[in-house]
Amino acid sequence: MSADGAAFISCCCIICSNPSAGYILRAVVRDFEGAAVTMADDKWTESVRSVKGVILDMCGVLYDSGEGGGVPIEGSVEAVKRLKASDLQLRFCTNETQATREKFVAKLCRMGFEINVSEVFPPAPAVVSVLKQRNLRPHLLVHDDVVPEFDGVDKSNPNCVVIGDAADNFSYENMNAAFRVLIGLEKPVLFSMGRGRYYKETDGLKLDVGVYMKALEYACDVEAEVVGKPAPMFFQTVLNDMGLQPHEVFMIGDDLVNDVGGAQQCGMKGLQVRTGKYRPSDERHPTVTADGYVDNLAAAVDAILKHRCP
Amino acid sequence: MSADGAAFISCCCIICSNPSAGYILRAVVRDFEGAAVTMADDKWTESVRSVKGVILDMCGVLYDSGEGGGVPIEGSVEAVKRLKASDLQLRFCTNETQATREKFVAKLCRMGFEINVSEVFPPAPAVVSVLKQRNLRPHLLVHDDVVPEFDGVDKSNPNCVVIGDAADNFSYENMNAAFRVLIGLEKPVLFSMGRGRYYKETDGLKLDVGVYMKALEYACDVEAEVVGKPAPMFFQTVLNDMGLQPHEVFMIGDDLVNDVGGAQQCGMKGLQVRTGKYRPSDERHPTVTADGYVDNLAAAVDAILKHRCP
Repeated sequence: MSADGAAFISCCCIICSNPSAGYILRAVVRDFEGAAVTMADDKWTESVRSVKGVILDMCGVLYDSGEGGGVPIEGSVEAVKRLKASDLQLRFCTNETQATREKFVAKLCRMGFEINVSEVFPPAPAVVSVLKQRNLRPHLLVHDDVVPEFDGVDKSNPNCVVIGDAADNFSYENMNAAFRVLIGLEKPVLFSMGRGRYYKETDGLKLDVGVYMKALEYACDVEAEVVGKPAPMFFQTVLNDMGLQPHEVFMIGDDLVNDVGGAQQCGMKGLQVRTGKYRPSDERHPTVTADGYVDNLAAAVDAILKHRCP
Repeated sequence: MSADGAAFISCCCIICSNPSAGYILRAVVRDFEGAAVTMADDKWTESVRSVKGVILDMCGVLYDSGEGGGVPIEGSVEAVKRLKASDLQLRFCTNETQATREKFVAKLCRMGFEINVSEVFPPAPAVVSVLKQRNLRPHLLVHDDVVPEFDGVDKSNPNCVVIGDAADNFSYENMNAAFRVLIGLEKPVLFSMGRGRYYKETDGLKLDVGVYMKALEYACDVEAEVVGKPAPMFFQTVLNDMGLQPHEVFMIGDDLVNDVGGAQQCGMKGLQVRTGKYRPSDERHPTVTADGYVDNLAAAVDAILKHRCP
């Protein structure tokens, strides 16, 4: 492969075009080993050189969740280390709502990741902030382990519903209880911590909170307020914490619509990894095209750092 | 009240306009007792005189469901008797999917209703017919008690999903199982036995199958095929059995969109009863306006029979 920085993604990591960003990266050539590589044009080269920060999705990028907390994705522990050792700012933006932020970070540290609580942005603290601002008292349909995030919130006589990835708590009984609160309100208010369709655990794909959000939206003829990716305000909170402009930041995730599409809506570049919930059909999605598709986080970090330090 | 047939709905049963049907029935006057009554114009009078058949929704019109099978709505047992004794044809069209047709009818007979199995049209036999026509093998997400309707259907190696009002079977585990079948198919096929939002049981409102249909539609980016009300083909099956044209038939239900709106889409008249899942806001619905709103089935039957036999 050439070392001049033009062909910076190794074979099987195809960087493709984002028509909305106005540059084309589809000129595929073959290097002397016959492997498929993709030539980047000057604009792309420039955007990698000017990047000042990276935001990583967590589940499906760092690890696959499942029984016992999950397992790291090969190369991801090392990839996070390399990003931390670089001159790039690093944050983690997750729709994880099955644990408090502290317990979630502790789990990742046990897997070998070097992550601080202050670097991680999940929806629960954000929704608590919104509830307090608007004097709302939630009925919670969430995972038991995230309930402590709402300890300081008045939950008596609820006037809104908050749902998260409640997993087994999404029983018919609990769904009816949330529905009855909503349908009893003059103007139902429903907060959804994310709007994902499904995610991958070690034992297979599982339904995510967005599916139950849609269910309650239909039941009550209401539109949920999404707190979490892909809500622009949620990404903006992370950008504010980094002190960076959107065009200076790459988002890397396994969810094409919520990670990549959401970040692009905010003006960031979005890369999709082919791990976690990635499916090959994502690369032919009718409305969202990633700025790049890479095999995994290690390959993405290779591509970015290699280009920055030729 | 005048006895000439013009004012045929007693106080508190307001017949209102259906703009799509082209006649106006909103001229409210007061009779000598001071009660609100609604004057019908000639076109409405004519449509009541020319009616040859009535289709009744069941839950929320005949009875309120709940523990122990539910309780009859006051006056409904007698109202069914009066319709049967009249010159009108009578059928029952239900989205009930919590029992086989035989067990369901037996329950209603125990409540005092005189109903034969052949007069009742639920979705399960209809969906079984579609599955056989199209050589489809279903994964079932339904109530345990309706499973015997699918006894003659090959359920091995499923290539579609059928959902009904599964109630407590709508667990997270069962939803994931149905989702995994769908997402594993090249072209997911989802049948929903009805698309209702919720219904009323004696202990409160409960989520109906439509809510879970929406959930799976969103999860798999698929549109469900609805078998049951308000699908036109489902109503047409009942009309065929009666040997009547749509304009000769009244549909009476508590569900504005699925009973009334569905029947109107087929060319029938639709009356909404103020029992079951009825809510006052139904009378201000943005897209569906019933041909009449009546307090209950007894009042509807009063109105129809009184006018036919002055």
